[in-house]
Amino acid sequence: MSSGEVRAITVDLPGARCDVRIGTGLLERTGAFLLEFASVGPVLLVTDDVVSDLYSGVVLDSLADAGFRPAVACIRAGEERKSLDSVRRIYQALLDLGADRETPVVALGGGVITDLAGFGAATFLRGLPFLSLPTTLLAQVDASVGGKTGVNLPEGKNLVGAFHHPRVVLADVGTLATLDERNFRSGLAEVAKIALALDPDLLDLLGARSAPPGPESSAAELLPIIFACVAAKARVVMDDEREADFRRVLNFGHTAGHAIEAAAGYEAVLHGEAVAVGMVAALRISTARGLLPEGERDRAIEFLRSLHLPVALLDLPGRVKPKDLVKYVVRDKKRRNGRLSLVLLHAPGVPEIVPNGSPEEVLAAIPV
Amino acid sequence: MSSGEVRAITVDLPGARCDVRIGTGLLERTGAFLLEFASVGPVLLVTDDVVSDLYSGVVLDSLADAGFRPAVACIRAGEERKSLDSVRRIYQALLDLGADRETPVVALGGGVITDLAGFGAATFLRGLPFLSLPTTLLAQVDASVGGKTGVNLPEGKNLVGAFHHPRVVLADVGTLATLDERNFRSGLAEVAKIALALDPDLLDLLGARSAPPGPESSAAELLPIIFACVAAKARVVMDDEREADFRRVLNFGHTAGHAIEAAAGYEAVLHGEAVAVGMVAALRISTARGLLPEGERDRAIEFLRSLHLPVALLDLPGRVKPKDLVKYVVRDKKRRNGRLSLVLLHAPGVPEIVPNGSPEEVLAAIPV
Repeated sequence: MSSGEVRAITVDLPGARCDVRIGTGLLERTGAFLLEFASVGPVLLVTDDVVSDLYSGVVLDSLADAGFRPAVACIRAGEERKSLDSVRRIYQALLDLGADRETPVVALGGGVITDLAGFGAATFLRGLPFLSLPTTLLAQVDASVGGKTGVNLPEGKNLVGAFHHPRVVLADVGTLATLDERNFRSGLAEVAKIALALDPDLLDLLGARSAPPGPESSAAELLPIIFACVAAKARVVMDDEREADFRRVLNFGHTAGHAIEAAAGYEAVLHGEAVAVGMVAALRISTARGLLPEGERDRAIEFLRSLHLPVALLDLPGRVKPKDLVKYVVRDKKRRNGRLSLVLLHAPGVPEIVPNGSPEEVLAAIPV
Repeated sequence: MSSGEVRAITVDLPGARCDVRIGTGLLERTGAFLLEFASVGPVLLVTDDVVSDLYSGVVLDSLADAGFRPAVACIRAGEERKSLDSVRRIYQALLDLGADRETPVVALGGGVITDLAGFGAATFLRGLPFLSLPTTLLAQVDASVGGKTGVNLPEGKNLVGAFHHPRVVLADVGTLATLDERNFRSGLAEVAKIALALDPDLLDLLGARSAPPGPESSAAELLPIIFACVAAKARVVMDDEREADFRRVLNFGHTAGHAIEAAAGYEAVLHGEAVAVGMVAALRISTARGLLPEGERDRAIEFLRSLHLPVALLDLPGRVKPKDLVKYVVRDKKRRNGRLSLVLLHAPGVPEIVPNGSPEEVLAAIPV
């Protein structure tokens, strides 16, 4: 990882401030960034076994060089470890460290690790300072900003959590080179979501490419894409920290997407894969309701296809059938006091949240 | 419980607002107060078996009369149930109810229940609306305002938690008549803390009595005392929500108090009993450092004695010896990055937070 351009975004919120740095060579500067808001002393690094093999050495060296005394809580990789039991392991590691309210927690990994470590940091002694090192495209563009932390229960994903903003996020674009193609693609679906729902300039930037970005893309190519996503998400989050209203635009593609994920069984279909198909459903509902012209709908679907994203159930690795989706869409409606709110588009970058969605129209719109 | 005077205090904080009502006949109006901020639908009542026998009937009737569909999570009474396992039971009850983000949680009980239910409400779906019905003097004057929620780990009290403010607190003074003398006394120690550290008027009010308040006192006598405590605490919390600084004055008596509690084993000595002896230690340090005249110190200790509070280790039910306390005071110092901050008094109502306390001076000041 060579040191190159670094771009910065600050998310300013009532009672919280989060500095995001995007660039290369950031992991080896973790210790220096941590010194910006923490005093030398013990620090807990939370990571998983796969990411640890690749990157924990450079992070631990950097922390030690800056004078910190790091300990590691290494969680087995995988969504099923995003659990309350893993949170207990983080608490135990903090107790073993003799942590006090100023002991920082550093997360190194994808969304499972940043969500899990963030929840541990949010709740130990009612809140420890938190630094996040997202190493997947999905985590860099989606999980890094917004302060959502949490874990799954056996009954569903992200049922337990808290809002807790990292003080600093270091999105080291160099780590994306070690992602496999499929996980990169899953993150790219969230990039496409932001481009379609919020950022027509990003849509143009991606549309102008002859081939979609992938793990082999250079840092110089990826950096402006990730920067645009983080900047767009930061604008939304600053408008509406608690998702009371406008933040829901970030759920574009997620109503059908969540149902697909749940029906397929988590891990069989990746989050971004399900969201990509969910976006096609949202585009089709937008046109069916007369909001989005047919030509715009088709162009948007073509855009998703050009990124090599799945655009129908048959494109997905798990065999998800339309009838499997019914109960999950209905359950979603029940969970929301009988309302199914949908994020629809009038045009790229012009979203609208409609509160009166029906399970029937969502199910009819999911492309087989 | 007859309906009588009700007094109100609003705690206004960035991003949160908490309405406290203090009076009689409030439990039977729970449903009406819940309607102020929640729509009819499912609601979870969290309580313990002892309090449930006394008061859950009236609360459940009130909720049902207002149109809610209440379910109950009943936790066995006792500090050892303030655990992550009990939080899981609350999550399960919420799942069984089909809770969504607008499903309210109502806590009915002492500090164990309000802290536990508050933490469940803080973390399920990243935060449910919360209504608190504190039924002990300690919970009414101390736990009801400030937004601290949490649970114990086997390694110590309140190690896990979150800040989550109740939308409404109903402190029904009528419930204090069913407290036993010892638990009432424990709450009275926190009343004395507020009087000494923050509110000389309350000190005068209590000092003018011929006998200390007890469970047999009338609601008319207790109401102004509880109101003064909640008002004083609300002022401090509004000044400093996150305890970065001034909120620490509420820790008057707690440095030595926590060590006494831990050394005695929780439940052997009640929180307020330990804090009462801890206040004597803080008063003695204040005088030893030349801040508080000897006469003021002696008058303050006499005030504690007049409330029938323990003022030395020998007064406590558990046999706590000075040498047992050493490791807990030293551990406290370690936990705080090597600093032991003490709350001392220049005079009643004139506290100062000093950062340079030593374990030796705390240990020397604890009265045997």
